[in-house]
Amino acid sequence: MSATSDIEQLIEIMSRLPGLGPRSARRAVLHLIRKRSQLLHPLSETMATVAATARECLNCGNISTQDLCEICTSNVRQTGQICVVEDVSDLWAMERTGMFKGRYHVLGGTLSALDSVGPEELGLVRLEGRIPAEDVKEVILALNATVDGMTTAHYIADLLEARVRVTTLAQGVPVGGELDYLDDGTIGAALAARRPV
Amino acid sequence: MSATSDIEQLIEIMSRLPGLGPRSARRAVLHLIRKRSQLLHPLSETMATVAATARECLNCGNISTQDLCEICTSNVRQTGQICVVEDVSDLWAMERTGMFKGRYHVLGGTLSALDSVGPEELGLVRLEGRIPAEDVKEVILALNATVDGMTTAHYIADLLEARVRVTTLAQGVPVGGELDYLDDGTIGAALAARRPV
Repeated sequence: MSATSDIEQLIEIMSRLPGLGPRSARRAVLHLIRKRSQLLHPLSETMATVAATARECLNCGNISTQDLCEICTSNVRQTGQICVVEDVSDLWAMERTGMFKGRYHVLGGTLSALDSVGPEELGLVRLEGRIPAEDVKEVILALNATVDGMTTAHYIADLLEARVRVTTLAQGVPVGGELDYLDDGTIGAALAARRPV
Repeated sequence: MSATSDIEQLIEIMSRLPGLGPRSARRAVLHLIRKRSQLLHPLSETMATVAATARECLNCGNISTQDLCEICTSNVRQTGQICVVEDVSDLWAMERTGMFKGRYHVLGGTLSALDSVGPEELGLVRLEGRIPAEDVKEVILALNATVDGMTTAHYIADLLEARVRVTTLAQGVPVGGELDYLDDGTIGAALAARRPV
């Protein structure tokens, strides 16, 4: 490596991003330096803004540049539904469908005795407080269909179902899925949840 | 996408980097925001420094944060040899071997009639000027073994060989290479360039 130390340092930091290794970080940095005005300057400025302003929404845990995120402050979103997700990336995935019009609650993980993540760490007390405060009628559990996700979903359902309707995402055959390539668990779940055509 | 516009914009710019698409850019930005102090702040600062200072070395075309790069100003590098490479990434690849102690000349591309890249665009006049100025005894052509790279190598050899010794990288079997998996051209070149054991 013969570039001067700032460029080396930039490559080193970039190589720590998920999905980038040393080689792709070098390519990305060279590309950035070549496209200085179209890429490097805008990226540098946007990154500085985000570094200065990004924080967690105090209400739902979404990432925002304000104390309260755009969804929590929006007056076109319905307040009667809260969709509980593990992570901000799951929130973004839900938003890309464009089908959910309510608000979110981002847990930031799942319950885990091993990693000593309990209900406090996931903000479940805050979630309970939101139900009367936002006049919530339904809590939709959109947690990952993993063991940890389902354990957490059961815990939240037990916690809340006396006070509010708790639902969860349907399990079944994915759109475009071929039975031959699906695991037995998915086919079994789809069969158990079969419905009239 | 429900993040506020600065975060969306950061994702959009990151997704234009080579090797990153929309999905990996989202992952990278989330990771950056989560690791604010260890990653986002240092990356933002280093990027701002590089954006402000990165330029091409006036002598060799290497990327540098000074007018002259570290290699051209180093007093431990030999001045009698110039290694001609297509691109800064090739210079970095040569440097990683640690075996070349001279200086470089970065062409920034290859001759191409189609893209109207002529000798002026590649800084060949500057290269010619460096031969007497730096008392160069040998020009090593480390161009890619592609048609364009070899055309350019022949052009430079014709241009310079009256004044200076011009050599090129050896062609042959790569270290660890198995004959069965090599193309005919490589095996042919290795056979033609065979040498006593």
